[in-house]
Amino acid sequence: MATKLLEERRTPSAKAEIQAETLVEAELKGHPSHGLQRLPRILTRIERGLIDPRTEGYASWRSPSFLEVDGLKGLGPVVATSALRQLTNKARSSGIAVCGIRNSNHLGMLAHYVESIAAHGQIGLALSSSEALVHPHGGTRAVLGTNPLAIAVPTAGRPMVVDLATGIVSMGKIHHHAANGMSIPLGWARDEFGQPTTDARQAKKGAIAPFGDAKGYALGMALELMVAALAGSALSPDVRGTLDAAAICNKGDVFIAIDIGSQPDLLLRLSSFLDLVRASIPADPTVPVTVPGDRSAARRRDVLLNGFEIAPRLWQELIDLSYSSDALSKGHAR
Amino acid sequence: MATKLLEERRTPSAKAEIQAETLVEAELKGHPSHGLQRLPRILTRIERGLIDPRTEGYASWRSPSFLEVDGLKGLGPVVATSALRQLTNKARSSGIAVCGIRNSNHLGMLAHYVESIAAHGQIGLALSSSEALVHPHGGTRAVLGTNPLAIAVPTAGRPMVVDLATGIVSMGKIHHHAANGMSIPLGWARDEFGQPTTDARQAKKGAIAPFGDAKGYALGMALELMVAALAGSALSPDVRGTLDAAAICNKGDVFIAIDIGSQPDLLLRLSSFLDLVRASIPADPTVPVTVPGDRSAARRRDVLLNGFEIAPRLWQELIDLSYSSDALSKGHAR
Repeated sequence: MATKLLEERRTPSAKAEIQAETLVEAELKGHPSHGLQRLPRILTRIERGLIDPRTEGYASWRSPSFLEVDGLKGLGPVVATSALRQLTNKARSSGIAVCGIRNSNHLGMLAHYVESIAAHGQIGLALSSSEALVHPHGGTRAVLGTNPLAIAVPTAGRPMVVDLATGIVSMGKIHHHAANGMSIPLGWARDEFGQPTTDARQAKKGAIAPFGDAKGYALGMALELMVAALAGSALSPDVRGTLDAAAICNKGDVFIAIDIGSQPDLLLRLSSFLDLVRASIPADPTVPVTVPGDRSAARRRDVLLNGFEIAPRLWQELIDLSYSSDALSKGHAR
Repeated sequence: MATKLLEERRTPSAKAEIQAETLVEAELKGHPSHGLQRLPRILTRIERGLIDPRTEGYASWRSPSFLEVDGLKGLGPVVATSALRQLTNKARSSGIAVCGIRNSNHLGMLAHYVESIAAHGQIGLALSSSEALVHPHGGTRAVLGTNPLAIAVPTAGRPMVVDLATGIVSMGKIHHHAANGMSIPLGWARDEFGQPTTDARQAKKGAIAPFGDAKGYALGMALELMVAALAGSALSPDVRGTLDAAAICNKGDVFIAIDIGSQPDLLLRLSSFLDLVRASIPADPTVPVTVPGDRSAARRRDVLLNGFEIAPRLWQELIDLSYSSDALSKGHAR
């Protein structure tokens, strides 16, 4: 379904599949905010020439281990996947490599990319910038991006994967509350006048709090500057095009890959440590301690067995977006 | 004073100065927990052969951009300073370089090192591991290190510097509360039986909460695994020797340096953004929004003008630790 809709808009098959896989992976992991609901906007952006679905971008080595990428308005996952191929090859020979991408489009979940780096036996880090949505610690106005950070570290089993935005909650969740007439907890957000609010509709026009007070704010700030400095992209007050269907996207993405070599003992040691953490005594005896990524992995296993649900309205919207209705009624999201 | 005490214990002058500067810098920035109060333990560790003050460690390039360092039980700041010289040189030519250090001693404040990387026009990241002091989100027992992270990004002015541990509070602060008979807020820590406590003395035997709930826990976990994987050092339940004077130190340190090239426009853009954040409307009209590092920098300026205070008991302890009392009564800490 997703692949087909992209192909209908001049996206070459292999590139359509990369974009579709990214959206479906988010659904598998239980993050529909980064899933198929993003597809209609991507299609509109292609139709309006804000995305060029045929390019992988232009990548050049600014220095031996620093890959500079102009995404040429390509699909985010397509540009990133191409860059990561070069990045992981380089990290294997040099130990570490970094890549800065500008002029590309929304990546979807960052976990997806660091997992693909970890599949090469490398530690992966991913950063991406966004529109200003988060207020500073002690501030009231949205001047920072959500500044997500993902890290994957290989172990003897599946990699340990962290994927976190530096806002206390996502704007997607606030929209979800607003759409369902639910209030939000005090402390999540401020309204457009900078006042604390529990009204999700007011929060949509305001600013999200940073997670973890001063520390989360500091982390977000560091990530914000790192992306701008390494990708040469806009800072969040000037970022456009990750959420709308009106502007060329000028955010940035940064990936770092670090080779840890072939060390079976090390990988076993990391896995044993994770098991020790999982086995440690929980606060609530009915809720075992988990390691970051455990819940996503469990959800993914479950969904692969039992499928996932798409809101009927979204499904209908996607069907309506098809030029030819064949192959769209099969119920296969990807 | 600090230099002299180190020299009295076979530390070569240049190395004694590096160690002393690190301790005094922490005092200048208002973090006495990483300042001169650490000196007596360092001196004891030297006397017991747990620190070899004469070495810079043994550094070798495992791959073109990955520096592997065996600290040979050297002073933490001495080993790190020597490694950073090689690291920043490499990053200048290759774009990015990483360094993993094992078998070295406590670094003091990480901000110090990333600032020295930023002085080369490079983004600096520093990570270090520690004894298990932090409980997992949803857990009750100390199985994670405090897993600090420091990041410095060059700007047109002084670099933006973040230095945060992933515990909600430092164990040093809990000790300070305990020593002064003060209670701690609920949520900071659990006692040795895993129960929430407001008694600082009980908390000393227990576990600190991660900052920022699940997100801070996830970040700390990723940093913990990264250090062990890149430095080849122990995981926190097995770490000894950063707080005691009884064991060889087996924690690890990781530094990453990324060259951002000579881009005056970029640096100005970063500085303008920071000024925009500082000028944004604060929640409390009497407390302006600050950028990470502002407070340390202001405190440092103030202290350089007016000096800083050392607790009389610590000062007397340091005087008593001197073999020859000459030159110790001058009141010069470094």
